Amino acid sequence: MWGDGRLCYGGDWNPEQWSPQVWREDVALMRQARVNLVTVGVFAWSRLEPAPGRYTFDWLDQVLDLLHDGGIRVALATPTASPPPWFSLAHPGALPVTADGVRLHHGSRDTYCAAAPAYRTAARRITEVLADRYATHPALAMWHVHNEYGTTCHCEHTAAAFRTWLAQRHGDLGALNTAWVTSFWSQHYSDWAQISTPRATQYLANPGQLLDFRRFWSDTLLAAYVEQRDLLRAANPRVPVTTNYVLGDWVPVDHARWAREVDLVAIDHYPSAVDGGAEEQSAFAADLARGWARHGAGDGTTPAWLLMESAPNHIYTPGRMHTKEPGRMARHSLSHIARGSRGAMFFQWRAPAGGAERFHSALVPHAGPDSRVYREAVRLGAILDRIAETDAGAVEASVAIAWDAASGWALQHPGLPSASLDHHAEVSAAHRALWRSGYACDVVVPGDPVEAYRLLVLPALYLTCDATADWVREHVRRGGHALVTWLSGVADEHARVRLGGYPGALRDLLGLRVEEFHPLAEGEQVLLSRGGTGRVWSETVRPAGAETVTAYVGGVLDGLPAVTRHRYGAGAAWYVSTRPDDETYRRLMVEAAHAAGVGPVCPAAPPGVEAVRRRAGEASWLFLVNHTDRPQRIPADGMDLLTDTPVDGEVVVPAGGVAVIRETPD
Amino acid sequence: MWGDGRLCYGGDWNPEQWSPQVWREDVALMRQARVNLVTVGVFAWSRLEPAPGRYTFDWLDQVLDLLHDGGIRVALATPTASPPPWFSLAHPGALPVTADGVRLHHGSRDTYCAAAPAYRTAARRITEVLADRYATHPALAMWHVHNEYGTTCHCEHTAAAFRTWLAQRHGDLGALNTAWVTSFWSQHYSDWAQISTPRATQYLANPGQLLDFRRFWSDTLLAAYVEQRDLLRAANPRVPVTTNYVLGDWVPVDHARWAREVDLVAIDHYPSAVDGGAEEQSAFAADLARGWARHGAGDGTTPAWLLMESAPNHIYTPGRMHTKEPGRMARHSLSHIARGSRGAMFFQWRAPAGGAERFHSALVPHAGPDSRVYREAVRLGAILDRIAETDAGAVEASVAIAWDAASGWALQHPGLPSASLDHHAEVSAAHRALWRSGYACDVVVPGDPVEAYRLLVLPALYLTCDATADWVREHVRRGGHALVTWLSGVADEHARVRLGGYPGALRDLLGLRVEEFHPLAEGEQVLLSRGGTGRVWSETVRPAGAETVTAYVGGVLDGLPAVTRHRYGAGAAWYVSTRPDDETYRRLMVEAAHAAGVGPVCPAAPPGVEAVRRRAGEASWLFLVNHTDRPQRIPADGMDLLTDTPVDGEVVVPAGGVAVIRETPD
Amino acid sequence: MWGDGRLCYGGDWNPEQWSPQVWREDVALMRQARVNLVTVGVFAWSRLEPAPGRYTFDWLDQVLDLLHDGGIRVALATPTASPPPWFSLAHPGALPVTADGVRLHHGSRDTYCAAAPAYRTAARRITEVLADRYATHPALAMWHVHNEYGTTCHCEHTAAAFRTWLAQRHGDLGALNTAWVTSFWSQHYSDWAQISTPRATQYLANPGQLLDFRRFWSDTLLAAYVEQRDLLRAANPRVPVTTNYVLGDWVPVDHARWAREVDLVAIDHYPSAVDGGAEEQSAFAADLARGWARHGAGDGTTPAWLLMESAPNHIYTPGRMHTKEPGRMARHSLSHIARGSRGAMFFQWRAPAGGAERFHSALVPHAGPDSRVYREAVRLGAILDRIAETDAGAVEASVAIAWDAASGWALQHPGLPSASLDHHAEVSAAHRALWRSGYACDVVVPGDPVEAYRLLVLPALYLTCDATADWVREHVRRGGHALVTWLSGVADEHARVRLGGYPGALRDLLGLRVEEFHPLAEGEQVLLSRGGTGRVWSETVRPAGAETVTAYVGGVLDGLPAVTRHRYGAGAAWYVSTRPDDETYRRLMVEAAHAAGVGPVCPAAPPGVEAVRRRAGEASWLFLVNHTDRPQRIPADGMDLLTDTPVDGEVVVPAGGVAVIRETPD
Repeated sequence: MWGDGRLCYGGDWNPEQWSPQVWREDVALMRQARVNLVTVGVFAWSRLEPAPGRYTFDWLDQVLDLLHDGGIRVALATPTASPPPWFSLAHPGALPVTADGVRLHHGSRDTYCAAAPAYRTAARRITEVLADRYATHPALAMWHVHNEYGTTCHCEHTAAAFRTWLAQRHGDLGALNTAWVTSFWSQHYSDWAQISTPRATQYLANPGQLLDFRRFWSDTLLAAYVEQRDLLRAANPRVPVTTNYVLGDWVPVDHARWAREVDLVAIDHYPSAVDGGAEEQSAFAADLARGWARHGAGDGTTPAWLLMESAPNHIYTPGRMHTKEPGRMARHSLSHIARGSRGAMFFQWRAPAGGAERFHSALVPHAGPDSRVYREAVRLGAILDRIAETDAGAVEASVAIAWDAASGWALQHPGLPSASLDHHAEVSAAHRALWRSGYACDVVVPGDPVEAYRLLVLPALYLTCDATADWVREHVRRGGHALVTWLSGVADEHARVRLGGYPGALRDLLGLRVEEFHPLAEGEQVLLSRGGTGRVWSETVRPAGAETVTAYVGGVLDGLPAVTRHRYGAGAAWYVSTRPDDETYRRLMVEAAHAAGVGPVCPAAPPGVEAVRRRAGEASWLFLVNHTDRPQRIPADGMDLLTDTPVDGEVVVPAGGVAVIRETPD
Repeated sequence: MWGDGRLCYGGDWNPEQWSPQVWREDVALMRQARVNLVTVGVFAWSRLEPAPGRYTFDWLDQVLDLLHDGGIRVALATPTASPPPWFSLAHPGALPVTADGVRLHHGSRDTYCAAAPAYRTAARRITEVLADRYATHPALAMWHVHNEYGTTCHCEHTAAAFRTWLAQRHGDLGALNTAWVTSFWSQHYSDWAQISTPRATQYLANPGQLLDFRRFWSDTLLAAYVEQRDLLRAANPRVPVTTNYVLGDWVPVDHARWAREVDLVAIDHYPSAVDGGAEEQSAFAADLARGWARHGAGDGTTPAWLLMESAPNHIYTPGRMHTKEPGRMARHSLSHIARGSRGAMFFQWRAPAGGAERFHSALVPHAGPDSRVYREAVRLGAILDRIAETDAGAVEASVAIAWDAASGWALQHPGLPSASLDHHAEVSAAHRALWRSGYACDVVVPGDPVEAYRLLVLPALYLTCDATADWVREHVRRGGHALVTWLSGVADEHARVRLGGYPGALRDLLGLRVEEFHPLAEGEQVLLSRGGTGRVWSETVRPAGAETVTAYVGGVLDGLPAVTRHRYGAGAAWYVSTRPDDETYRRLMVEAAHAAGVGPVCPAAPPGVEAVRRRAGEASWLFLVNHTDRPQRIPADGMDLLTDTPVDGEVVVPAGGVAVIRETPD
Repeated sequence: MWGDGRLCYGGDWNPEQWSPQVWREDVALMRQARVNLVTVGVFAWSRLEPAPGRYTFDWLDQVLDLLHDGGIRVALATPTASPPPWFSLAHPGALPVTADGVRLHHGSRDTYCAAAPAYRTAARRITEVLADRYATHPALAMWHVHNEYGTTCHCEHTAAAFRTWLAQRHGDLGALNTAWVTSFWSQHYSDWAQISTPRATQYLANPGQLLDFRRFWSDTLLAAYVEQRDLLRAANPRVPVTTNYVLGDWVPVDHARWAREVDLVAIDHYPSAVDGGAEEQSAFAADLARGWARHGAGDGTTPAWLLMESAPNHIYTPGRMHTKEPGRMARHSLSHIARGSRGAMFFQWRAPAGGAERFHSALVPHAGPDSRVYREAVRLGAILDRIAETDAGAVEASVAIAWDAASGWALQHPGLPSASLDHHAEVSAAHRALWRSGYACDVVVPGDPVEAYRLLVLPALYLTCDATADWVREHVRRGGHALVTWLSGVADEHARVRLGGYPGALRDLLGLRVEEFHPLAEGEQVLLSRGGTGRVWSETVRPAGAETVTAYVGGVLDGLPAVTRHRYGAGAAWYVSTRPDDETYRRLMVEAAHAAGVGPVCPAAPPGVEAVRRRAGEASWLFLVNHTDRPQRIPADGMDLLTDTPVDGEVVVPAGGVAVIRETPD
């Protein structure tokens, strides 16, 4: 709704790759597809500033005017994610260095060190120049700073900045030595100058150093963003500023923390599963984004977030681009919008003839507009126009799942009991169990308000500081339910193991003590007493007040608890000491949710039909996304916005189709 | 036939590793085996020039005289593939650098940068000295320049040479920027100095840069070769000059282009399959070599090529040396000779006691002459003597397959829709389909004369410039048939995708438009309407004049064309949009060949019996290589050269054996 | 028995990680568990010398006094395996460099170059200071030098030292050129300065260079050890000095050679198999350690060795820490002690809260003393006290297996006929065949006295110098039996293949000649005429006096010998040309042992019960370790030391339990 009262629809457009004739054709095609927002200039630095201090804005002036004339608004990017070749040649010390000491070279994108002063200076300069020229352009809907912040470096600039950051974080060397447990392996530092980034070393690296290096990069990249944002805001305070988040295990960015600094949380989402997993990944990503936005808003206002990039017709898997089936693009878009995205944006508008991503998906593919993809794009544009009113509604959820960037990073460290530990995978597995049960859920960051939720799920919340432990305890004490899974509470904020029995921070809440871990081998399973299996992990759980819900069957843990429940305060805390298989997890989640008094969004929706409700005051909208290959009849009353027909008791959602129903108030 | 009227027979011999007593024993053993050509001196630089400018030729004088006295001719190598340790110590800047910036060290072979001036100077000097001394030695049959050109480098010498080469190729920076599509990802160059080799970079590299880097190395290595060749020719213009090609995906050499600069195409061939694939690989390699030689000759003369290296008794697979079964060495040799090799040469004559390749195969193995391998070598020598007359004949073929080095390189780039794209594998699969059907085929390079062929096969000819597209069109227009497979025609010579629908360059010829790619996952299959399956790839084919031969069955492409045929001019063009399984491909090839009016070499030959016909005027010879484990009866008339007995209506080829029949003219 | 008449029991303790309160609690817990030896100070350098030349010994004084007061003796470590951060900052040239030229950074442990003078100087200094202060401390039981010597480097210091070492080993360059066969690939050196360490190079490295580089590192690390040892001995000649061996393919240490320089062979043993293989690996490691100790003693005295590190409750597999089942810790410990270990030591006493190995196994785990692990530790302490008398006995064995560090290194070189060649794996497979048959065996180093053994097994003794060949021949000539497996005798001490037929050095002894190798593919099997299969390897064996025991069935080797036997002198020599499957190998070993007149330790012991006899004059002790999950009845007479009850004809060893019987003399 950035300016024109409609959901955002469009994508990245790179006019610098095309002739003015194509520009005009593109604007006509955009209008045909009802596109109303395009991201421009993301990788245009070398075309905007072909030599240091020499600027060529004519083409961009024309492009913005042309778009404005066509009624299309612009997310104008600062092009700092890829400095031009002249910059790299002039500033070799601003090229990034790997942990092995390899200095990378120009030839791709993102090849700079964000801690290098020369880079930061050049980035600020181009930002200022852009702001000067375009901050009041009528086409400007928002600033899109940079692109997918996430690169790191190990150069000397970085090492110096890391030491400065560490001094600020830890105050004095003694505190750092304690936090990093440098008494292990003779790593005690007696001078700040002795500390380097976690460069290639002989054997396992220090977990505290690794964790702080990620945090340092999150803060350093954020500082680079904030510098630009402040310049842009200064030029025109009314234009919102954002940057598009890239998701992935390798990204050293705490997206929740960043959410406080953006006017709009924007995510790029590319599922990696070809099968139904793609739909589950999309729903999870959307819930994550909404959670980050809520965390960033802080003040309870409706959080704004936007699916800034998605692939029109590809799912990228290792070694292959899978072509999305007909209708799937729209379903993925609607799933995001149902979960609060302010629109559906794509990478990219038009497929390029060259460059490294010449085969990346586009709304106008190599084949041109006479293509299935473009025809689906036109249909999607029409759908979005019909459902614009839903943007006013807030997503309803009574379950919350905790997510924590730092726990994700800490579980990537070497020396853990198993190489299969993955915070994101565990949060995702819990989310999937809820998704398959038809429950809506919010993602929360430890410390966020959780009074609104009946059930709080903590999957593998490995780093649990005292405040977080208090936060969970307080939730349960006052009557909430919690479902805690293995690894949660094991370590503190410095990734130091809490002693005396796992999970150190939560033993009292859970009414138990874990004496030993029994990691499972790849593919190994343990049987559970109420059916189903556990994978990845198992534990010797010693109850101290908790009751056994499910026991292990067979093996050295035979008869010992696998799942427990503990009355605590006015609520209850469940503990799950293994990773249940998907169906067992789903049933467990239903049981816990039921005990907590939570029901699914649309009890009659069959498996494969995603149901989300948005509500604004008296009004409510029910999104029904049918991922199955047959029509589905679902009880509903109101108006189907897509077909503009009344729904009286039942709606038939077409195979692979969507229904959005403005519900009749009860 | 290099001088003595016989087929070449012998291999690499390294007298520098042995005592004069072994030299004499070796010459006696060579004579017993009827060896008539040995390659000498390939890695002898450090023994010929033990210190800069100090030469020790006495041993080589003795060796050449000894060979000459024994009636054995010499392919004398320039030893430039491995500079001596003193060179590396004196010129560390001539050591190669990897893409990561790692400078390699002396300790193996080939550890030099061919773009480093110091290396080139030293290489010219040793070549001149050798030429001075041996250019008129009576034992000299040919010069064998260097060994298996193929190494690359990323040092500063290389970067400078690359920039010079690019300036020559593209003329001006604007053209390079256009060719490489540097408008993508802010890679626009404003000065030549900004361009480096494709060093390690943050993410995907530029495809244009990668492609030109390969071309640059092909030209740079060729220049290094030509320098030596010219010096050798100047010393004695009558001695032919060659260099042995190494095959493999990693080799940055356009062997067809190089063929114009050698007097004899020489290949080293080591199959990698242990099963029947080894025989198919051998036949394909031989046809490739003959095709390169024909391309090099240009003027229609009978092209000369030679199997310069092969392994007597090993097949090298990753992690294991498979021992060839009895008789297999001879069959592989005969398959090459049937396809035009001027003999059968081996690496190597005698197995060394040490060095990195101490277990590499040899005609005289570690066990010495009292061994199966040497006994088979003696038998092979006798066979070659008996079939010397066949050398006069040209191989007959009515089918041509196009091969293109640059398409092979371009399909190794990152960012393609599938990681399973491989030009060489696709050409090889088409060749295999013909081999299994008993068809003889020639390999052609785009632009080569193809009037002689009824059927032209274009497998995955990804880079199709306008001239190449015209060449195919012209072939079909005047009545030829073409069978084109997926990816052909998709990109231009700079690897830029041709827009408007695939395959941009060939849509009109094929009478269709491909709207979308549907790459298949590893192991995934699609069913085809006339039986069989497709692998690797599938496409949305929209006919525009073409008729459907085979349709996809099931999935999103159900009912759409998989294989089409289009009348065009006086001929017809087939399109295959998936990779058929081997048997389906074979049947399709039979169908297309039949439609084109082409039949197999020997219709009665059963599967597993390779049949090739050579013809010279009225005379013809039929090679029958029986790869099966039972005797095979095959209709024939003439004289069996191996047994020196008449063949009257039928020949029985022994299990695992060979027959070569001088055919009775019709 | 280091000082207190008891078996050693304890582990690494790191008081520098804990408060004095924990120290006191730990000493109390140690006493409860009857711990009598702890290793202190292994990684304490940065706490002992926090800045160059500034020492802080107070805490260590307190710790040693506290231990002494508690009756616990100390293996005091020199902390040189991990220099403090200040050292690395001051001496960047002493940081190690990889073969790729990457300089490693501080941040783990072991990050130094042992050839760097600055490191050696600093290491000597801290050793001297420690010796000055603690050499006469009453708690001091032994010096524990460094930790797990094994790191290598490719820096300039290393290259210079390597050249010096080579000059000493080879005398002159000509000898080196001959030994390394530098005539191959133009590697002839004309000056020592041309030789570098085997840095990253273009292709396969020289095997002679690789082998000597390993030998160089073994000697260089040994020199570093000896420097420290001599300083410690000078301070107090009565305190024994040792260093703990780390095992593994990567370790460039000839542990047998080192055994001559330590007062006690100490090994760290961590099995890698989760199933029964862990028990077999433990037995093999113990026999190896005893063999090294015997080789080091040289003079026939009872060799001393100690299991210095083992994991209380984990088995480390790639990607997972498997939790040992109840009782398994004790069985592993007893298996080592049965085989001569002077005790059972663990890494580590108390699990740390942080550091890279925060989840490494400990006797006091994160859960604290209220845990299965600590309870088992207490029980083990009691067991060890009961069986202290067995320490007087020598292990009985009539079979010897040869082990050779250099053969292990040579079979890791590139260019071998198969990537599945592994000396350690072959020795281990032979040992396993004996273990499963109930035979006790000693490990010997080629050249060791073998008069005491009836059967000498030589598995894959690839490097066989003339003296070693004589040693085996002499053993058989005078009536011993030998069982030799493939690859033995193939190469000389420089890894040069012996010509004329394999196995060059042993053809006469074995009465055969191997003409060709036929390596098998991964998973491939060959059938054997008496049942069973061969894996990994096969050969064309041509008997020349030997009789065929087992023939190959099928394939190209059909009917040729797989296993042979040859009368030689007063003995017999067997040859095994493939790797039999485990059961076939076991049966073959029984057959050979029987022929040699050797029987199992305890003929009535069922599979899975490990039986070892120790003897001292008239006295003998029978260890019975029951690895099965049921009680086992075994004939015996005497006194069961664990239960302190008489055994009259039969003892019942509990499931997963142990019995140690002081036998009634016959």
